[in-house]
Amino acid sequence: MAETTDNLMEKIISLAKRRGFVFPGSEIYGGLANSWDYGPYGAQLKKNIKDHWWKFFVESRDDMVGLDAAIIMNPKVWEASGHVGNFADYAIECRDCNNRIRVDHYLNAEKNEEFTKQVTTANEILDGTSEKRIEADSLINKVHEEIKDFFNKETSCPTCGKKNWTVPKMFSLMLQTALGSTRDSEVLAYLRPETAQAMFVDFAMIQQTSRKKLPFGVAQIGKAFRNEITPGNFIFRTREFEQMEIEYFFNPEKTKWEEKFDELKQDMEAWMKAVGIDPAKTHAVDIPDGERAHYSKRTIDFEFDYPFGQKELFGLAYRGDYDMEQHEKASGQELRYLDPETNEKVLPHVIEPSLGVDRAMLAILLSAFEEQKLEGDDVRTVLHLKPAIAPVQVAIFPLLKNKPELVAKAREVYDMLRQSFRVEFDDNGNVGKRYRRQDEIGTPYCITIDFDTLGENKELEGTVTVRDRDS
Amino acid sequence: MAETTDNLMEKIISLAKRRGFVFPGSEIYGGLANSWDYGPYGAQLKKNIKDHWWKFFVESRDDMVGLDAAIIMNPKVWEASGHVGNFADYAIECRDCNNRIRVDHYLNAEKNEEFTKQVTTANEILDGTSEKRIEADSLINKVHEEIKDFFNKETSCPTCGKKNWTVPKMFSLMLQTALGSTRDSEVLAYLRPETAQAMFVDFAMIQQTSRKKLPFGVAQIGKAFRNEITPGNFIFRTREFEQMEIEYFFNPEKTKWEEKFDELKQDMEAWMKAVGIDPAKTHAVDIPDGERAHYSKRTIDFEFDYPFGQKELFGLAYRGDYDMEQHEKASGQELRYLDPETNEKVLPHVIEPSLGVDRAMLAILLSAFEEQKLEGDDVRTVLHLKPAIAPVQVAIFPLLKNKPELVAKAREVYDMLRQSFRVEFDDNGNVGKRYRRQDEIGTPYCITIDFDTLGENKELEGTVTVRDRDS
Repeated sequence: MAETTDNLMEKIISLAKRRGFVFPGSEIYGGLANSWDYGPYGAQLKKNIKDHWWKFFVESRDDMVGLDAAIIMNPKVWEASGHVGNFADYAIECRDCNNRIRVDHYLNAEKNEEFTKQVTTANEILDGTSEKRIEADSLINKVHEEIKDFFNKETSCPTCGKKNWTVPKMFSLMLQTALGSTRDSEVLAYLRPETAQAMFVDFAMIQQTSRKKLPFGVAQIGKAFRNEITPGNFIFRTREFEQMEIEYFFNPEKTKWEEKFDELKQDMEAWMKAVGIDPAKTHAVDIPDGERAHYSKRTIDFEFDYPFGQKELFGLAYRGDYDMEQHEKASGQELRYLDPETNEKVLPHVIEPSLGVDRAMLAILLSAFEEQKLEGDDVRTVLHLKPAIAPVQVAIFPLLKNKPELVAKAREVYDMLRQSFRVEFDDNGNVGKRYRRQDEIGTPYCITIDFDTLGENKELEGTVTVRDRDS
Repeated sequence: MAETTDNLMEKIISLAKRRGFVFPGSEIYGGLANSWDYGPYGAQLKKNIKDHWWKFFVESRDDMVGLDAAIIMNPKVWEASGHVGNFADYAIECRDCNNRIRVDHYLNAEKNEEFTKQVTTANEILDGTSEKRIEADSLINKVHEEIKDFFNKETSCPTCGKKNWTVPKMFSLMLQTALGSTRDSEVLAYLRPETAQAMFVDFAMIQQTSRKKLPFGVAQIGKAFRNEITPGNFIFRTREFEQMEIEYFFNPEKTKWEEKFDELKQDMEAWMKAVGIDPAKTHAVDIPDGERAHYSKRTIDFEFDYPFGQKELFGLAYRGDYDMEQHEKASGQELRYLDPETNEKVLPHVIEPSLGVDRAMLAILLSAFEEQKLEGDDVRTVLHLKPAIAPVQVAIFPLLKNKPELVAKAREVYDMLRQSFRVEFDDNGNVGKRYRRQDEIGTPYCITIDFDTLGENKELEGTVTVRDRDS
């Protein structure tokens, strides 16, 4: 009987909730629009994924350093990066299927500029005296109608294929907040929509204090926030999420971007393999000319076969010196690197490997999940998590709960192993049930302390039964 | 010559910036009101502190599990916890020294209630028709004047001792934001002001999925945000900060709170010692009756001798079942624990050890900092960081940069050691300068590869010079 893909997603969500990996945030209050909390095993798995990434890309490499910047940055950062603008903040909705899309993503550069100009003009009028309000409003309405007409003529809904669009509405891609100790001294600020910009903004400070020479990368793990138009699919797309990003800086005169790009691509693939993301379900999709950002010479989307379709997992983009240039211009500060050999100042170019922690976890769970049909109608559910990231690496069972000598011996083994491994002690129910539970949380090894351990069979005294999840 | 305390703080901030531990956030844009970014060594030190705490309190304990909940929770959480209210949001300022304090912190329960009632009434009028606006405004002004008069009669400024207060002003203790994919569908939400509430809200889910029996604790590390009235003193008080909190749940019929409180106090003290917070500079201050929250039978502030005074470092509070009761009432969901022995349902009591990551780091830096006067006017600056948390554990130096055989051997040692330790390779400048740099970033061990290593002196072939920072 073929398993439907819908079923698989339901099973993952159900397992995640049943075993306390992930459950709806604030659930006793009815939750909060696709927000999720990571419970005991989930918090540990998520930590293990992040730690593994940090060790792999930062601690064990000579050409990478870390950063931990504030979530709330100076709002000017987002003006320079292009995240705040008049026109980036429009969404349009399909009347047929209610799909919402960003207007700027579906217009070419010329049309974007044309509409931006009109909206800006209207807003400038609006900022003037209040008598101009009616004039500005009618101007804005006119632009909105034009955009609607343009979309209804030119753009089919990417979901249902129809051309039946509403007028566009403003939205904030970024979550806004206000800082200040009294209401009248508040200033507008944003929650970062990506961790990346801090690496550009802090580049000079990082380079000077770490004394790294180009090429080198700056890595950061942390929360980011986006007012996603269509959050959903469990932890795939959420308004609050966690990123692991690198900006790899180099001198384009000395380092061939094509080679560095390939190296970083291989590093990402090696990491995905190491944490157990199935290579057979992963596709490195080269984004063709015309669909990439204008400053990017090459961009790869790593896509994954989720049950809800082949969709983005991670990204890798060569961004040229676009970001560095924007921040130099906007801040008036020099962000150049002084090459110690040539004594020339260089504006570094950048390659950006960008990974999502929550998506990594989803891909790992989907790669690790298996249902084995056993005799009768019995089904064994197993998460084949890699030992390096499994929340529990070794589970220790005394065969029976009511035999103090078994329990004492098991505690001894537990205390010994927990110095070096993540271990769990379980004396609850029969051993078969305990195995099943550990299978579901992805524990690679279970150790049972039985009467042989205690010396009932002299030849086996001091031995334990080790059960490998996968063999 | 005695060192002024001001000097010490300046030195720490200067070292932190010079060596890339901590520098002002968004600095190229003029910074952002006391926000800080952690650079390469700082990000690693901060990660090491958090990892050490997690291993100490979660991974190596049988009675503790982890949680990683969303920063943005359902707003009802903050109504139930008492963080959102009409009156909690007033601050009053001293005209003499500009010190700002929270009004509700300096009023007794009766006065708080009286003023709250008046403000609420005025706000209700305000919410009605617009003609009532003048009536409401005058009512609010009247309350404000009353509060001012009351403070100018009864309350001396805790900073300068004067009684010269302004009228109170509204402020939001919590940072607000809005969720929604278009402006007209936005809903108000808050950035959590503490990580703690998620442990109460998710208690039932965590207990059921982890199958832990009381007593057990739930631990969480994560960012929290407060519109602090007086941010300042470097990373001591910031609007964005990171917490490490535990809620330890127990059945008061079976566990004596006094004993559990003492145990957790000792655990905290052991952890502080393990990460190098100087016990001689730490004071466990019992908060006397009348100054504790009404529901707390015992609260300890761990205070630290900062250069700017003896101030709060960490907290430990017995909170009874207050929080659990509030969330049961507000959510209508049962948060009780079914005791498997007595079959009775218990609302757990809670003890809360609450630690700040940024404050821990500041206390560690202040405890580790030393200036040694050497011959002449020379001063050696050393951070005596514990090896477990030092950003670099071992630095590897080839004696000379231009001897390929030295460099190759040093690389070999580096590659070998980096499997197990955080290592740094440095071939820059003379060895004396390299030692000084490692002293400043707190590296406990430096290994120099010299000609003896290569066999110039046969008896020393294959040996290296290991230099211990502290001896």
